[in-house]
Amino acid sequence: MGGPSVLHGLEGSIAEIGRSLHERALRANPSLFDARGLRGRLAARALSDERLRSALFHFIDTLPQLGSAAEVAGHFRAYLGAYELGGLWGRVLRLGSHPALAGAVRASVKRVAREFLIEPQPSAIRRVLRRLARLPATATFDAVGEAVLTDQEAERYLQRNLELFELLARESSEPPAISVKLSALTARFDPLDRSGSCRRALARLNWFLTRAVELKANVTVDMEQHELKGLILDTFFEVLEQFPHAGWLPGIALQAYAPDALVHVERVIEFARTRRRRIGVRLVKGAYWDTEVALAEQRNWPVPVFLDKAQTDQQYELLTARLFDHPDVIYPAIAGHNLRSLSHAIAAARMRGLRRDAWEVQMLLGMADPLSKAVASEGIQLRVYVPVGDLLAGIAYLIRRLMENTANNSILRQTYAERRPLTDLLAAPHPAPMQTEARATGFRNLPLIDFSDPKSAAAFRHALDAVRSRLGSTLRLNVDGTTERAAGHHVCTNPASRDETLGVVEMAGVAHADRAVANAVGAFESWREVAVERRVEVCRRAADLMLARRERLAALEVLEVGKNWREADADVAEAVDYLRFYAQQMEALDGWRPTAGFPGERNDLTYEPRGVAAIIAPWNFPLAILTGMASAALVAGNPVILKPAEQAMLIAAELHGILLEAGVPPAVCQFLPGEGETVGRHLVEHPDVGLIAFTGSREVGLAILERAGRVVSGQRQVKRVVCEMGGKNAIIVDADADLDEAVLHTLHSAFGFQGQKCSAASRVIALESVHDRFASRLADALDCYPYGPPEDPQYVFGPVISEQARERIERYIELGKSEGKLHYRGRVPQSGHYVAPAIFTGILPRHRLAREEIFGPVLSILCAESFAQALDMALDSEFALTGGVFSRLPEHIDLARRRFRVGNLYINRRITGALVSAQPFGGIAMSGTGVQAGGPDYLKQFLWTRVVSENTLRHGFVPPSPGT
Amino acid sequence: MGGPSVLHGLEGSIAEIGRSLHERALRANPSLFDARGLRGRLAARALSDERLRSALFHFIDTLPQLGSAAEVAGHFRAYLGAYELGGLWGRVLRLGSHPALAGAVRASVKRVAREFLIEPQPSAIRRVLRRLARLPATATFDAVGEAVLTDQEAERYLQRNLELFELLARESSEPPAISVKLSALTARFDPLDRSGSCRRALARLNWFLTRAVELKANVTVDMEQHELKGLILDTFFEVLEQFPHAGWLPGIALQAYAPDALVHVERVIEFARTRRRRIGVRLVKGAYWDTEVALAEQRNWPVPVFLDKAQTDQQYELLTARLFDHPDVIYPAIAGHNLRSLSHAIAAARMRGLRRDAWEVQMLLGMADPLSKAVASEGIQLRVYVPVGDLLAGIAYLIRRLMENTANNSILRQTYAERRPLTDLLAAPHPAPMQTEARATGFRNLPLIDFSDPKSAAAFRHALDAVRSRLGSTLRLNVDGTTERAAGHHVCTNPASRDETLGVVEMAGVAHADRAVANAVGAFESWREVAVERRVEVCRRAADLMLARRERLAALEVLEVGKNWREADADVAEAVDYLRFYAQQMEALDGWRPTAGFPGERNDLTYEPRGVAAIIAPWNFPLAILTGMASAALVAGNPVILKPAEQAMLIAAELHGILLEAGVPPAVCQFLPGEGETVGRHLVEHPDVGLIAFTGSREVGLAILERAGRVVSGQRQVKRVVCEMGGKNAIIVDADADLDEAVLHTLHSAFGFQGQKCSAASRVIALESVHDRFASRLADALDCYPYGPPEDPQYVFGPVISEQARERIERYIELGKSEGKLHYRGRVPQSGHYVAPAIFTGILPRHRLAREEIFGPVLSILCAESFAQALDMALDSEFALTGGVFSRLPEHIDLARRRFRVGNLYINRRITGALVSAQPFGGIAMSGTGVQAGGPDYLKQFLWTRVVSENTLRHGFVPPSPGT
Repeated sequence: MGGPSVLHGLEGSIAEIGRSLHERALRANPSLFDARGLRGRLAARALSDERLRSALFHFIDTLPQLGSAAEVAGHFRAYLGAYELGGLWGRVLRLGSHPALAGAVRASVKRVAREFLIEPQPSAIRRVLRRLARLPATATFDAVGEAVLTDQEAERYLQRNLELFELLARESSEPPAISVKLSALTARFDPLDRSGSCRRALARLNWFLTRAVELKANVTVDMEQHELKGLILDTFFEVLEQFPHAGWLPGIALQAYAPDALVHVERVIEFARTRRRRIGVRLVKGAYWDTEVALAEQRNWPVPVFLDKAQTDQQYELLTARLFDHPDVIYPAIAGHNLRSLSHAIAAARMRGLRRDAWEVQMLLGMADPLSKAVASEGIQLRVYVPVGDLLAGIAYLIRRLMENTANNSILRQTYAERRPLTDLLAAPHPAPMQTEARATGFRNLPLIDFSDPKSAAAFRHALDAVRSRLGSTLRLNVDGTTERAAGHHVCTNPASRDETLGVVEMAGVAHADRAVANAVGAFESWREVAVERRVEVCRRAADLMLARRERLAALEVLEVGKNWREADADVAEAVDYLRFYAQQMEALDGWRPTAGFPGERNDLTYEPRGVAAIIAPWNFPLAILTGMASAALVAGNPVILKPAEQAMLIAAELHGILLEAGVPPAVCQFLPGEGETVGRHLVEHPDVGLIAFTGSREVGLAILERAGRVVSGQRQVKRVVCEMGGKNAIIVDADADLDEAVLHTLHSAFGFQGQKCSAASRVIALESVHDRFASRLADALDCYPYGPPEDPQYVFGPVISEQARERIERYIELGKSEGKLHYRGRVPQSGHYVAPAIFTGILPRHRLAREEIFGPVLSILCAESFAQALDMALDSEFALTGGVFSRLPEHIDLARRRFRVGNLYINRRITGALVSAQPFGGIAMSGTGVQAGGPDYLKQFLWTRVVSENTLRHGFVPPSPGT
Repeated sequence: MGGPSVLHGLEGSIAEIGRSLHERALRANPSLFDARGLRGRLAARALSDERLRSALFHFIDTLPQLGSAAEVAGHFRAYLGAYELGGLWGRVLRLGSHPALAGAVRASVKRVAREFLIEPQPSAIRRVLRRLARLPATATFDAVGEAVLTDQEAERYLQRNLELFELLARESSEPPAISVKLSALTARFDPLDRSGSCRRALARLNWFLTRAVELKANVTVDMEQHELKGLILDTFFEVLEQFPHAGWLPGIALQAYAPDALVHVERVIEFARTRRRRIGVRLVKGAYWDTEVALAEQRNWPVPVFLDKAQTDQQYELLTARLFDHPDVIYPAIAGHNLRSLSHAIAAARMRGLRRDAWEVQMLLGMADPLSKAVASEGIQLRVYVPVGDLLAGIAYLIRRLMENTANNSILRQTYAERRPLTDLLAAPHPAPMQTEARATGFRNLPLIDFSDPKSAAAFRHALDAVRSRLGSTLRLNVDGTTERAAGHHVCTNPASRDETLGVVEMAGVAHADRAVANAVGAFESWREVAVERRVEVCRRAADLMLARRERLAALEVLEVGKNWREADADVAEAVDYLRFYAQQMEALDGWRPTAGFPGERNDLTYEPRGVAAIIAPWNFPLAILTGMASAALVAGNPVILKPAEQAMLIAAELHGILLEAGVPPAVCQFLPGEGETVGRHLVEHPDVGLIAFTGSREVGLAILERAGRVVSGQRQVKRVVCEMGGKNAIIVDADADLDEAVLHTLHSAFGFQGQKCSAASRVIALESVHDRFASRLADALDCYPYGPPEDPQYVFGPVISEQARERIERYIELGKSEGKLHYRGRVPQSGHYVAPAIFTGILPRHRLAREEIFGPVLSILCAESFAQALDMALDSEFALTGGVFSRLPEHIDLARRRFRVGNLYINRRITGALVSAQPFGGIAMSGTGVQAGGPDYLKQFLWTRVVSENTLRHGFVPPSPGT
């Protein structure tokens, strides 16, 4: 044993208390798992069959959304049709796929739900209070429901809580106890917009808290995901400052699975002590473990929770003790169902001689009832956490509870299903020694900045200031070291503020292009002879330089093209990714690879660069796309001429500087700011340009393809064109879509960076049954976002790139009014090139709004009668770049996988933000040439292969090859 | 030991004889390896150091060719510079890289050579005869020298033998004994042209044999490579028929390493018995083991020799016994240096009571001298095989001998260097049990037909007859099952015979093309949904069908485009290879491949077909290229429209039939015979054609690229063009080139199929020092090949494809006369479209003959002062398809590898005949787009990639994905 228990002396008393609790629990219910409904065979089976468990939860997850009985039956069949079970649930399983039984299925699920949550009715409240009084126990209530995406929903959440408050005041003799989720008090609870979020949450909480003081209520702020933790704590303290009145008990939940929980506990204790306020602390283990781990791994962020369950348990005991040490200012609520943790808490309290009313145990409704009885009968204050809400709408909550009940490492499972020996169950937590993780050698995406860390936000703000302070100069035209007489000037302005000049760029003309090409031709010979490992090293060094300047580069993007902080950071991170990814890809292509070996003959293949590459880039991902195309060309051994978009020349110049600093010779990477129609075109048609990498509009792309196809006098090779063009991307919202997710992800897919992404959603095809709800929630959600200069992080959405773009988009909006119905129009400031976002309904597939790429914050919602029709509508486009589907029906997901043929299809998530390597990006049809950037085949477009076959047989002698 | 010895009872006496021989040998030279020159340290070192051995032989191999002392020093440095050795050779090694020491190096090598071969001078002959008489031993002589590529060289070989004959008659009292190589008696000793080869060899042998009879001489026909064995035996029997006179002993060498040696021994015994002629049989183990194994593996033919040395030894004993059983008609010469084999032979002879003069042992000059002394002193008749020739020119012979001396499994090495126990050395050969070889699962090239097998030749002849008997019909125009009214007719004729009509093909027009495209568009949906494994299966079935008809398909090519048998067979085999290779490649690309896994997110990539493919093929590889392009498109899931060249429509129609028969739906593979300028162009410009695969001329290729680049109204995707064009390929002949090989391989590279290959050599860049010899040998060699209809296998070279082609080529020849010097012009028949082959010298890089693709039997030889200049000249072309280098200097080979950037570079071998998979084929610049056919990236051109990203996280639940 000898584990690092916090209070060694306690172990004896813990064992004793544990044994006593256990015996009481067994007395309360001797056959825990044969009793009722879900706890019968299905639960037993679900405990042991991972796939059934998953299928069951998937099915239940869809229920609230399902309309007709046929839908319920269909989903039932899809998820659970393959299983057989005995008993009542077995009969339901067998019959569940008949539409006629849909009601029964729904009722069964509701019956299960009722074990864990109650409906917001006086009778139900009374019933539960009575039941709890018998234990004896008090209650704390929590109004659960769908996610809050709109201010209306936040308002409704508040209203529900207020009603609950009054109901409790009426029905209960105790002061009402209630838990609130701050994130549900505003549609935008964003740690990057810390003060705004805090302000919005408090504004809505205001009246509620006033009433809490009156009622001497007990209000606990729930803890949520890691990213929100800092913001929640800040807001909580702000609440205490604003409602300093005694008489109510403010509480906060803290999660023991977070390594930083101790810091938070100390902050709370210190706050309580300095402000002389008593604060309730609900100590939980933490309920978002799966999500936290998954998201951290997806984002390549440090995992913010302990991976070892024993570490959580150990910290839980440590925190329990810490809280018990301050009974004058802290009222601890030890929440959980773990026999060991509870026994420890009781022992620790007794050791300190804490009064019975100095602390309490909290347990969830419907979980571990026998244990709660045991705790209550042991004379401990018990409070039961009672979720209140619509039985089906609360399903997300239910699922989390069911999972807790059945997960592999669940204490309930261990205690009751596996019947592990009591000494095991009561052993002190004993974390495994830290494993030093084997460092993965493959490519990893650069993690984005975690703006929930205030230091990150401060650094970005600082970078914005630094960048702005250095703006305003003139970038002289320079071709390979020689300053040139420019062909013109371009004034760079901030799209969010028409009058702000960021700088002036001297523009190149056709003669400069000729000079640049000649330089590049001259440099090709030597650059291709540079060892691949050297070129790779240069790219990696450029990535490191970029990384070192990531905030400043992103800040420049904020000012030059109007990206918000996160989007700008993502663009820089993607640029770093491209440099590293293509470097790694090129490493893999380096050298001679044997094709087939024969004795007496060597056959080897190698990849060779193609020649001078013109890199013609767009402004919307001003660093990432330019870097991607340029780095692929460079690392492959091709000299490049960077011809950036006029709207993003400052950031392009930064890339040029970085590449040169990293070691690319000046003639191998030339910066040629110029107009597309003259300089761009000239490069495309130049006989000595062998490679054109272009990303931009369909119009320009097709013109480049056509021009590059014409062989001109003096041309030595067929030109290779790498070409990515536009999209008219559709998201299908299926009848069973999780609307919480569909709305949120569509919002960001359609309006992120004002829709100025080739991947942006510009069509939604909603199934009839969800069309109206989807459209209205989306509009309401969008309406929560004010538009403004993105350098202020409260603005998620900003201006479009230029006045010309604004006018074009406005024309489309006018057109939309004649084609369909303007369902929503936002409001924007007048100072920059802002376009108020627009959502149209009633758009038909033949309408121009459904066919043409608008490249702005304009979304058309179409309506489909069936999923198949929706798919046909989605595919009815000359583009095929990205697409999305929100559905929870496996056969629809599968159908989309097979038939929704676009370059990048996203299922149940946003359709923008492809990650290098994980999500190779690019489309077909009029969207591109079908070879995806950041994918396995992209780099090869910048290369050609040659083979050397050597006969090594000499006069009958088959030698080992000499010299090599 | 109980091994499967042939004569068990003999083992005792073998052991006794062996011990006696061994003791005598040790007495003759107690310290075998410290005695002289090469046998000193260098030999000891070479025995143990594989790389030194290889380097040494490579160096010696180049010596005859090297001119200046600087060259000798350079090669010495390149091969041997890295080694250090003590003693005389050590000093030579240290000094060898100084030009001043070149003479010493050469002299040293000559001194070594003199151990193994003597110069053709009376004094040398006398000296060796005197030395042998002392043993006592007699001799048999062999005039060794360079390879015979021309009739002049064959004549010189004959003369050398005649002179040797007379010299021996004068110098020796014994009847002269001599060995001849039949392959050296004619420039073209080709088993496919069996009667012609036999006739040519005999014509030259005639006078020589007449003299042999007069001198009662002993003439042994040497056995050569496997491929020539049948022809050699046939010719040998023909010799016996034509020179039935008694008085001379005709002999033949037979190789125990060949599994079919027993059959050959029986044939010889039977012949001797039925014709009542006494025949000498020299039984050898076989000297081409390395080459036989290497070539068989290269060609994917059965290895014609035992892989297990013990099997050879065992069969050797079996054959010895078999020969000893017929002393009345067979005079066995047991040739070898293996103690066990010799002891066995002696024991077997003694057991049979053979007279001393009934058989003999033969040993090589300079090999195992102590053992030969032992044999002679044992009272056995001994004959020493004495090679006669120029010491340096005979170097190829020397190398084979040195290798035998030092190879790992060499008996000499075992006996003397490793000093293995005598009982081991005398153990009966004990072959390892046959290994059932693990079947390689990867792609393997279809082996070509082995025409040295008369049955194969007969089958081909039969196929030609069968094909011809069915010719002459009209191929009706049929678009997807409907017979159409044709737009015209094309009469197919035999290019070798203007008047022979092979058939009439009804031609499609533009309207038919539209219909075909519409059909294909309709078929795309279903074809791409066909499982990859089904499409793969269809391609493999087509390959099998093709294989089953290979002779008939090849025969049709012989008649339709004028390929010779081997070239036609190779084309069919390549077509089979493409079908199988792309099927395998597609198999590997099938399905969903995860890109990067995150918990809660699945990311998968898949390859998709592009759409309707127009396959526009040339006539020169009428089946292979059409099949290659079509099968890649089809297996990838694209419907194809086959637009073959007009000159090869009959064979294309066969492919169409095979694909349909294999299961490709008719609308998925349509045959559209039509004119390039109308139908081909229409397909290229058609909005519904998404993919164009073209192989052909630069002119047409560039026009296609240009037209395909223009997006036309109604077009739904950017067109992908797979385009292979021409070449102007150069072979560099370095100063140290092995001219035997350079001449032979250039001849076939430049004139094979009359130069009508995009890969054909049309320029030779010879270094000054070898220019004249190369040019003259090449012309002389080419002159040995008569031109005629290729259906007669005596004609390696035939007509060009058409009258138009003939005229174009003749115009180039006229031009060549004004630009350079017509070095050689061949003679051709008048009946078909023949062009007499032409070789020009004095061509400069700027001449049109050095720059333009001629596509005919015209070769320009340019002269370069240095290898670097040669490389520059080779690269000075708008094409970059194939290239060749003949050099034996590692730094030149390395330079070529790095800088001779063409699609396919061949070192020390012919530059045509790329093998699918082993030699991915295709060029860059104006030769193609740099993605090589039959290579790792080709198939992907017919595909695009798409990615599906699925969020599997649901309400905090990270599930194992349901359903999949």
